[in-house]
Amino acid sequence: MKSQVLKVPAYTLHAYEAEVKLNQNENPYDFPGDLKEEAFRRFRNRSWSRYPDFVPDSLRLRVAGFAGWQKDGVLIGNGSNELLQSALTVLIKSRTRVAIPAPTFTVYRLIAKVLGARIVDILLNPDLTYNVDDLIAKSRESGAGVLIINSPNNPTGSVLKNEDLKRILEQFSGHVLLDEAYYEFWGRTAIELLKDFPRLIITRTFSKAMGMASLRVGYLLAHPDLAAQISKAKLPYNVNQFSLTAAEVALENVERFRPAIEAVLKERDRLATELSRVPGLKVYPSEANFFTVEVSVSPRLVFENLYGQGILIRDVSSYPMLSKCLRISVGTPDENNRLLSALHAAMSARAMEASRAPGDPHERTNSNDNPKHQ
Amino acid sequence: MKSQVLKVPAYTLHAYEAEVKLNQNENPYDFPGDLKEEAFRRFRNRSWSRYPDFVPDSLRLRVAGFAGWQKDGVLIGNGSNELLQSALTVLIKSRTRVAIPAPTFTVYRLIAKVLGARIVDILLNPDLTYNVDDLIAKSRESGAGVLIINSPNNPTGSVLKNEDLKRILEQFSGHVLLDEAYYEFWGRTAIELLKDFPRLIITRTFSKAMGMASLRVGYLLAHPDLAAQISKAKLPYNVNQFSLTAAEVALENVERFRPAIEAVLKERDRLATELSRVPGLKVYPSEANFFTVEVSVSPRLVFENLYGQGILIRDVSSYPMLSKCLRISVGTPDENNRLLSALHAAMSARAMEASRAPGDPHERTNSNDNPKHQ
Repeated sequence: MKSQVLKVPAYTLHAYEAEVKLNQNENPYDFPGDLKEEAFRRFRNRSWSRYPDFVPDSLRLRVAGFAGWQKDGVLIGNGSNELLQSALTVLIKSRTRVAIPAPTFTVYRLIAKVLGARIVDILLNPDLTYNVDDLIAKSRESGAGVLIINSPNNPTGSVLKNEDLKRILEQFSGHVLLDEAYYEFWGRTAIELLKDFPRLIITRTFSKAMGMASLRVGYLLAHPDLAAQISKAKLPYNVNQFSLTAAEVALENVERFRPAIEAVLKERDRLATELSRVPGLKVYPSEANFFTVEVSVSPRLVFENLYGQGILIRDVSSYPMLSKCLRISVGTPDENNRLLSALHAAMSARAMEASRAPGDPHERTNSNDNPKHQ
Repeated sequence: MKSQVLKVPAYTLHAYEAEVKLNQNENPYDFPGDLKEEAFRRFRNRSWSRYPDFVPDSLRLRVAGFAGWQKDGVLIGNGSNELLQSALTVLIKSRTRVAIPAPTFTVYRLIAKVLGARIVDILLNPDLTYNVDDLIAKSRESGAGVLIINSPNNPTGSVLKNEDLKRILEQFSGHVLLDEAYYEFWGRTAIELLKDFPRLIITRTFSKAMGMASLRVGYLLAHPDLAAQISKAKLPYNVNQFSLTAAEVALENVERFRPAIEAVLKERDRLATELSRVPGLKVYPSEANFFTVEVSVSPRLVFENLYGQGILIRDVSSYPMLSKCLRISVGTPDENNRLLSALHAAMSARAMEASRAPGDPHERTNSNDNPKHQ
């Protein structure tokens, strides 16, 4: 057994359930019902006992058209995490250093560590924006082979502009893995840099704006030569045929997903304003469908208090720089209204006192902080 | 980029299509139609935009009950290959030796190599049965950390009896990964050895007897402590919710899959007899839903000739020991009848001559020999 595997903590999860679920940056609007039926219709008559196509070329072609990139530079994965894992599997040699901003999505670190990489943490600025000079300097100084950037960044909502990414690619000679899981909520992409920088790898997902988290489909965009190498670490038939079918239906009807995105953006603006009015709470600007907020009292107590009110958010206080913070996904207007009322109640001193009463709940293991969570 | 990745050949595939598809050891009988509808019914009302459960406990519990093993020792994967990959990811350190019988399913070797392992090949007996003494001696002598065994073995149909597996586990101190993908066609399992040997890992799949190849669901059975370690290399939300749902429906109705298995077994017996009557063809005994056959002429020519007659089988002549061989999956009675007529025609000298005529087809690249194929 690899020693670095034994050192990684075991994951257990207390399954929190709540009426209002704002903890996983999911799309609060379901996949459209008629498109569900269309996916069923197409899949019903196919023989389930037969393997999917060896390479999902029709979906690759659709993704290529949608993203504006060439088909041979597109890989389809069982969620974008799988493609990230494949990319790191081919890029990480024994003791390769992988530079990762902190705080960010914890799965990057976990995958890299299990693969035997050494992690170089590069902190964000105190205002939780990217420190581009630091990203360049520390990636170079540490001799990192790979730099992973999430833009917009989970959990902070920070973004990296293309001019900054270009500067990084010009000054850092390793591979840059850019995770654009939330790009639809920002409205920008770095795809235009792919043609000049064959060391750039972009991943995206159908899980967020496309409302398909339950179906696990992601894609990777890179130079075809690099994509061909990464493909070697991907298992054959890695995406099931039903999810492939649903993803095709989604892309054929991509305009149908626009209203949900617009609704989320509108609510994001409203939430930014309303959250900033909650006493004892500071909201960081975000270009994604979630916010990091800093609270003047114990974040765990706020988490528990909201949970008692039927609202599940994400306690990110164990992340670097975020010891006073929580992450809140943007929900429907109703869900956000419930969140705001509950937050106002929670942030009143009396509510905090009450939540502290039975059984010292803030000492309870925070199993919702599972590092594999979105 | 890892040098061992660059060395692995790139996979390209000429997509052969044929009326009669006997090339992937698939179940020729589709998943029952009413059970398809039941899976749709359950999945329709679920929100697709929400992630699957963090751990698919209800399916794990069903699998545990079905397999007769404890739930904490069950992992669910995106096909059993994913679980094999996870297991090898935690077991393979830099330069770990992995012992693999030859010939066998090529994905074992590919995964192990991409992970940086050194492969120790252990040939089968000339009659394509397992050489147990050799498996023990060569695993020990080479200092292998892992031994992978497929029983029944793809592509030969050979099996390893529990008494032999027990002897291996007693004399070889590494981990043994037993792939039981085809166990339903043999009717035996090594699960009873799990309790005494915490170094044994068993994988199985819903792709074959359960008729769910398109949906990619596999499972792993091991000691709970080992399962917990392997779980660390598994990505979160690795199986989509639709496939989880379909697998639950399948296990709740497991008796519905019995007639298809019985039909395949009956046809296997008939095919064994009928194939042995084809001139110039030798059939090896098989406990799976496929046969390795040896032909007196070029296997490639037989493959092409059958393909010209609308029948797709698998050319395994690039495998060790199998330079004269083809692999044929058991189909429906009609499909098998077509295969038998076509084979009789192909094996006649005149047919072989004819197939050689235009454009020297036996020189054509055998892209159906994709090593990632089932």
